[in-house]
Amino acid sequence: MNKLPPHVQRARRPEHKELRLASILEAARSLALDKGVRAVTLTDIAARTGINKSAVLRYVETREDIYLRLTAECWSQWATALRDALGQRTDGTADELAVELCRTVVDQPLLCDLMAHAPLTLERHVSADAVLAYKLAALAALDDMAQAGARFQPPLDEEAVRELVSTVSLLAGSLWQIASPPEALARLYAEEPRLAHAVVDFLPRLTSAARTMAAGLTLRAR
Amino acid sequence: MNKLPPHVQRARRPEHKELRLASILEAARSLALDKGVRAVTLTDIAARTGINKSAVLRYVETREDIYLRLTAECWSQWATALRDALGQRTDGTADELAVELCRTVVDQPLLCDLMAHAPLTLERHVSADAVLAYKLAALAALDDMAQAGARFQPPLDEEAVRELVSTVSLLAGSLWQIASPPEALARLYAEEPRLAHAVVDFLPRLTSAARTMAAGLTLRAR
Repeated sequence: MNKLPPHVQRARRPEHKELRLASILEAARSLALDKGVRAVTLTDIAARTGINKSAVLRYVETREDIYLRLTAECWSQWATALRDALGQRTDGTADELAVELCRTVVDQPLLCDLMAHAPLTLERHVSADAVLAYKLAALAALDDMAQAGARFQPPLDEEAVRELVSTVSLLAGSLWQIASPPEALARLYAEEPRLAHAVVDFLPRLTSAARTMAAGLTLRAR
Repeated sequence: MNKLPPHVQRARRPEHKELRLASILEAARSLALDKGVRAVTLTDIAARTGINKSAVLRYVETREDIYLRLTAECWSQWATALRDALGQRTDGTADELAVELCRTVVDQPLLCDLMAHAPLTLERHVSADAVLAYKLAALAALDDMAQAGARFQPPLDEEAVRELVSTVSLLAGSLWQIASPPEALARLYAEEPRLAHAVVDFLPRLTSAARTMAAGLTLRAR
């Protein structure tokens, strides 16, 4: 007789495996939103999921595999959010598109945090298959956004929108890390007037760069 | 009688301390250029300098302190290189400035590598004093580049050039990590045609974004 509660038992049927994987991802997501991706360990994720570390490793390769899967998921969610925000309109401007891109990415704080970690650490601690699955998901989301963005506003074609989305994602990734300093550094920023220029206000700074980029792309498209 | 060779002895006089620190930084620089910042340990740096780890820690706080000092140094070198490239001209265009910014930053592969590491890891493992010294040096280089860039081409004022330089630095930092994948990932890119869109050609991609940004800033400045 098995006395373990059902959620702690080893998942043997495919649908149980899916559920277990989903609960691991959910634990990793909520921990990262609490304390930042960098600070979350595999032990934390296992504890939050209610199973032990070696059990977690039956469903994923590494801690980094978990976060790479979440990065892929977040890219799809960003694409869906953008599509919803743009709606059925076909009379938008590149400037409006830039604003919506920034608004929707900032709504995904986990994606913003993960974007810098993906090439720097996540992709380096998983198998080639895991990287491939992640890259294909991210590229599909990018294609989706390029299509939706080109339909929303006629001046920029899909190639130009792809460049805009990709630049916004790179800037969001690097600005997020600068705009979310550790506590000691945040205190330093607050106390040191000479660092006023180093403080980054995430959404305004990102939006300003995206709108400038969109204006430049529009000029180039003429 | 002291039998240690002079360079292994403890540096007691201020000028000796300076020399010792310079040789530690030089070792860290050449190791990072060889195998990438991420892979260099304090033990590597000590071995290359020819002293032991605890001796290194008399001159710097941590491994990250060494690389933060090098980041500051690289920012100044970038500013100097840009000034030299722009020369005495005052009839340049924003587009030419964008091209020179990218050309001069790509000439500093160590800076490109360090840019992503600075907020993500380096700033988090040093004292507030070390962060402050680094930030002030980087801001001074940014000011210097804003001045030189504004003088070189009249359309953009210092504030706009500052935005351009800062955006180029953010993009250079994130593109560098993507454009310098680990060996296994580089193999995957080469073998998998579906990833053709994920391959980044560093200088052309950076230059295209910088020129688009410069065009947008020029439009805004009118």
